[in-house]
Amino acid sequence: MAANTFGEVFRLTSFGESHGPGIGGVIDGVPAGVRLDLNQIQQWLDRRKPGQSHLASPRKENDRLEVLSGLMNGITTGTPLAFIVWNADQKSADYNHLEDVFRPSHADYTYQLKYGIRDHRGGGRSSARETISRVVAGAIAAQYLNMFGIEITGYVSAIGTIELPHYLTDLPMKENIEKSLVRCPIEEYSDRMQGLIEQTKTEGDTLGGVISCHIQGLPGGLGAPVFDKFHADLGKAMLSINAVKGFEYGSGFEGVKRKGSEENDRFVMESGRVKTLSNRSGGIQGGITNGEEVYFKVAFKPVATIMQDQETVDRKGNEVVMKAKGRHDVCVVPRAVVIVESMAAIVCLDHFLRNKVFSRE
Amino acid sequence: MAANTFGEVFRLTSFGESHGPGIGGVIDGVPAGVRLDLNQIQQWLDRRKPGQSHLASPRKENDRLEVLSGLMNGITTGTPLAFIVWNADQKSADYNHLEDVFRPSHADYTYQLKYGIRDHRGGGRSSARETISRVVAGAIAAQYLNMFGIEITGYVSAIGTIELPHYLTDLPMKENIEKSLVRCPIEEYSDRMQGLIEQTKTEGDTLGGVISCHIQGLPGGLGAPVFDKFHADLGKAMLSINAVKGFEYGSGFEGVKRKGSEENDRFVMESGRVKTLSNRSGGIQGGITNGEEVYFKVAFKPVATIMQDQETVDRKGNEVVMKAKGRHDVCVVPRAVVIVESMAAIVCLDHFLRNKVFSRE
Amino acid sequence: MAANTFGEVFRLTSFGESHGPGIGGVIDGVPAGVRLDLNQIQQWLDRRKPGQSHLASPRKENDRLEVLSGLMNGITTGTPLAFIVWNADQKSADYNHLEDVFRPSHADYTYQLKYGIRDHRGGGRSSARETISRVVAGAIAAQYLNMFGIEITGYVSAIGTIELPHYLTDLPMKENIEKSLVRCPIEEYSDRMQGLIEQTKTEGDTLGGVISCHIQGLPGGLGAPVFDKFHADLGKAMLSINAVKGFEYGSGFEGVKRKGSEENDRFVMESGRVKTLSNRSGGIQGGITNGEEVYFKVAFKPVATIMQDQETVDRKGNEVVMKAKGRHDVCVVPRAVVIVESMAAIVCLDHFLRNKVFSRE
Amino acid sequence: MAANTFGEVFRLTSFGESHGPGIGGVIDGVPAGVRLDLNQIQQWLDRRKPGQSHLASPRKENDRLEVLSGLMNGITTGTPLAFIVWNADQKSADYNHLEDVFRPSHADYTYQLKYGIRDHRGGGRSSARETISRVVAGAIAAQYLNMFGIEITGYVSAIGTIELPHYLTDLPMKENIEKSLVRCPIEEYSDRMQGLIEQTKTEGDTLGGVISCHIQGLPGGLGAPVFDKFHADLGKAMLSINAVKGFEYGSGFEGVKRKGSEENDRFVMESGRVKTLSNRSGGIQGGITNGEEVYFKVAFKPVATIMQDQETVDRKGNEVVMKAKGRHDVCVVPRAVVIVESMAAIVCLDHFLRNKVFSRE
Repeated sequence: MAANTFGEVFRLTSFGESHGPGIGGVIDGVPAGVRLDLNQIQQWLDRRKPGQSHLASPRKENDRLEVLSGLMNGITTGTPLAFIVWNADQKSADYNHLEDVFRPSHADYTYQLKYGIRDHRGGGRSSARETISRVVAGAIAAQYLNMFGIEITGYVSAIGTIELPHYLTDLPMKENIEKSLVRCPIEEYSDRMQGLIEQTKTEGDTLGGVISCHIQGLPGGLGAPVFDKFHADLGKAMLSINAVKGFEYGSGFEGVKRKGSEENDRFVMESGRVKTLSNRSGGIQGGITNGEEVYFKVAFKPVATIMQDQETVDRKGNEVVMKAKGRHDVCVVPRAVVIVESMAAIVCLDHFLRNKVFSRE
Repeated sequence: MAANTFGEVFRLTSFGESHGPGIGGVIDGVPAGVRLDLNQIQQWLDRRKPGQSHLASPRKENDRLEVLSGLMNGITTGTPLAFIVWNADQKSADYNHLEDVFRPSHADYTYQLKYGIRDHRGGGRSSARETISRVVAGAIAAQYLNMFGIEITGYVSAIGTIELPHYLTDLPMKENIEKSLVRCPIEEYSDRMQGLIEQTKTEGDTLGGVISCHIQGLPGGLGAPVFDKFHADLGKAMLSINAVKGFEYGSGFEGVKRKGSEENDRFVMESGRVKTLSNRSGGIQGGITNGEEVYFKVAFKPVATIMQDQETVDRKGNEVVMKAKGRHDVCVVPRAVVIVESMAAIVCLDHFLRNKVFSRE
Repeated sequence: MAANTFGEVFRLTSFGESHGPGIGGVIDGVPAGVRLDLNQIQQWLDRRKPGQSHLASPRKENDRLEVLSGLMNGITTGTPLAFIVWNADQKSADYNHLEDVFRPSHADYTYQLKYGIRDHRGGGRSSARETISRVVAGAIAAQYLNMFGIEITGYVSAIGTIELPHYLTDLPMKENIEKSLVRCPIEEYSDRMQGLIEQTKTEGDTLGGVISCHIQGLPGGLGAPVFDKFHADLGKAMLSINAVKGFEYGSGFEGVKRKGSEENDRFVMESGRVKTLSNRSGGIQGGITNGEEVYFKVAFKPVATIMQDQETVDRKGNEVVMKAKGRHDVCVVPRAVVIVESMAAIVCLDHFLRNKVFSRE
Repeated sequence: MAANTFGEVFRLTSFGESHGPGIGGVIDGVPAGVRLDLNQIQQWLDRRKPGQSHLASPRKENDRLEVLSGLMNGITTGTPLAFIVWNADQKSADYNHLEDVFRPSHADYTYQLKYGIRDHRGGGRSSARETISRVVAGAIAAQYLNMFGIEITGYVSAIGTIELPHYLTDLPMKENIEKSLVRCPIEEYSDRMQGLIEQTKTEGDTLGGVISCHIQGLPGGLGAPVFDKFHADLGKAMLSINAVKGFEYGSGFEGVKRKGSEENDRFVMESGRVKTLSNRSGGIQGGITNGEEVYFKVAFKPVATIMQDQETVDRKGNEVVMKAKGRHDVCVVPRAVVIVESMAAIVCLDHFLRNKVFSRE
């Protein structure tokens, strides 16, 4: 019943509202004796924060990490690592007009329904600011995974109707992805996506998109049949991110159209190791990683808050016209790349640690 | 770390191998005082079993349910409901040639990697026979949900390259779905899918497909932010089914291409209740159900076992040619409809019971 | 919410009622590749079953183990190990007079209160037959622990008013404990306890007792601060056994009377290892094992079913006189030794496996 | 694997070290819509803090509660309630001499063994300051329980060799308990306990004790067979508190000495309700509450840090003499009353909420 906790061994418990004191979390199960690079965590937070370019929301969120426990002289002690990012630059008054209005395709109505109360300021708990806690935990997980040669790389593969034709086989350096304002490493597409965002902004409208993500260097044997298949946990992690509507891995929905003889990955020996010639399995067979690259896609719907008048209802059951205000993104997908990477890192480390239980020494 | 358990309050723990004594499970959290209709459970099992038509595997699995605990005079007592379906008609010798061979795109290699041992007969634990346990639990959950007017309906919306153009807005009666050998209620498409399966069978090849599923009558308020969003748990449930490669709900991957102004669902009042005019949200907002219909799609890859010679490697690292034998389906998707419905029922009942904790009496 | 599941990594899910088809369980997390000795499990079951001597209930429960999954050629595969012991020799008619009566100090009333229904035959789920599932899981855990030199030994240290003056420092061989009909290895006390049981039987009355238990060979480092302290999980395991009213470890309640200077265990070096000179800590410090012997006591109340008329109430609220019938033990404590050992083995193996996650390779 | 989390529905995740930034926690599952009395929480913290009288440690810990999330205008929103109590007045230098020394009967050695690293300052995570998080969660739980007439009252029933002869049948008002410096409401015993503490202080030695606790007004039906019996969870909660060595409920270890005919609680009808004439069951039968008062005892060993030289070993394996320094309590038992009450409140509320799932509306 731990709705605000994710993971079994590496466990993030998240807390905080967008207009409360701050957003934070407690990570239980951080391996002991690891020197953490706090700058790297901050860089991941910076990749998430609004206001990174003229394409994004002008809200300024400084989002400085403060560690509350679990570190001694910068080294993890095996005890829970708690942290907080204090909120700032909230203009709660911006949201007064929303106290009684249910914004279309937001969580306002369902929170009210479930809890009988909701924090209307900035979306409260349903705000995407909550993902700060995921990015901190993901950055820590990624640091640990990197020590074992495991690398996670996400990029934007679609915005609105503009989409890359396929997964990138030669993965771009992270730096190249970061060079693109929309985090799409193929310049031609990046330019078109950027143009679409600018155009859509003038219309007061918003856009969704797709993030593709690759996990390299993951050892075989991760994932647990029957219900905790590696891709099932990965899928749940992605679907738990705000605005996500779909998840596929390996050949995904496209694979449906192929026949078994076309879809199967042939096993071969390579330098004494079992490998597959193709990788339509997406590095996962029977729910367990096979040592090949894991790759997947995540679909984000367009931002629900648009700069247009919208008809809706309020808490008393009146039909009202809601005038849009506040400072919002046209498209959050570029900022969500680091969130996808973070959740992937959490799942990878969780299963990496879980798998130690099965070691036969 | 409960890899073989699914659910928080209504919890299924699954056990069994395809060529062991049987497949079964223990359900903890069955509400007390409910008279179970064992015939209905058997009917669900019958919809899953092989050999239902000439399109399916000729294996005969009788799959009779035996309840081991939790019932007194046919009424649930609140104690764990354990059950088993004994295996029969296994021809383990059929699998002798597989003892050392890793079948392409099966779980043979990854199980060997993870556990250092595997039951090669019929796929052992990774066999789709394991889904028997899910169907029993799902059938029980569906009975309970029906008492509250909640109905789950799945059907085949694609096989190979033949796909329905969109979700069905007027849901067919379950009987109409059952009339189709491929469980596609639109006769024209059903015929073409059937033809494709027959054709593919002659090629010794296999097919994948897509199942669409609708949940009607679900109350609002189900689902738990932040990580246990209703669709995140639903997605994990679907992705945990054998051969599933993708999941989307509501507007899904298609929604990416729409703008916010097109995607948002407008709230209106209808008979004193808050409703949405459109339902691109798929009945879920902020991870919590809003009382509208929930609908989603699940992508299945083609069956990995084909009736063609395949090159692969064996346990000792030799490259070998594997000759296909055994009795296998060309396309399991029609039989998987009831599995999708079952996992959906488990998720619905689990969150239905979880939500009682939030009741304000 | 998994009320019928115990353990985190080595997880037992228990099912069954005393007068249903059988008592069984599913163990998730059994390490793969271990050859199980089924005879040893049967011997443990035999130590639990009624009718072992003239002191015990004349009910004959053959209690033969049947394994349903998780084994291939006698070797564990890492998949769930399910098992059942079929019920037999139930005389449900013996319990007809209890259908509406709440037996004093039994679970009849509280089950009725909680579930609105109860299986009155033989106590249903609240029957001590449920402990069969624990003994099977415990026997398996003990086999595994033995491979690492970990040995668990319980014995009866009190029955009614007759009690051993202290823990046994030179642990008796298990054979010596088994020689005593009451499983008290000190002959003088064993004889007196046996006499007390015989005497109490003639009075139609019943007795409680205390079981002491020692765990030798346990490595240091097991147990997890803050809430899952080794002794906290051990205590919960013991308190979950039917009729248990108290638990203490190390110096326990007696330690309260000593001062810090008397209670503290002095660290010394011995053959290059840190040891403690005394062991009032009971092998656990700060909730984590320190490599010394773990020892503890468990208090059992007298059997609630006595062969005397008792005044009570029935389901309709009438005050009635209940005449005792059925076949019951005067004192179950000797039979409970193997249950205590089993739950101890489950806790030890669970924490043993959990601790692998912390390994620093 | 959530070692720092307690509870299933009302879940406390605890964090913090005695000499880190602070001690805090996140509570998931706080019922929505409740106006919290923050003063009451502070009062509970004040009952825990050191320096309450000349009998206690002169360390000054102000221990002011800061809520980080989950409240809007003082009302709970159903989202996680995070909090922190900032550390202050730590004199870490006081602990420099302990960096390499394993204090006898402390957690120093076992933490080092398990994690390969430990925070030696003030005990780090193993410090009793961690119980701050429990007291905050317990105070909140108690407020909620009070709304339903549930009241938890603990008091000191033994210090060292001085002990009350039995449970108090007429429960003292909490004010009377608070009047006693040692929180023993019987003046004669309180005086003797106080004298013993003063005397022991002059010896540089320390004392343990026993806390008795009563839960009144608890409805029947709480607790979940088989493993999550109400008293099993209560026992684990108590045993997880620092320095606890034993737990018993109802007739406890004494009940062992009675016969069934003496121990059984007779059911009677009283004002149309089923009651028991006696209550040796301690309000729990078959692991489920029966509506009678729940009562139990918790044994605390003497404080391990004494003001005497002690022989021990250091991290390098040298045998050394450790000179005691720092500011420590002679006896923590009076301060632990509120910790016992807090853990009891957490268990009660957790099972209270869990039981809603079983409601038959």
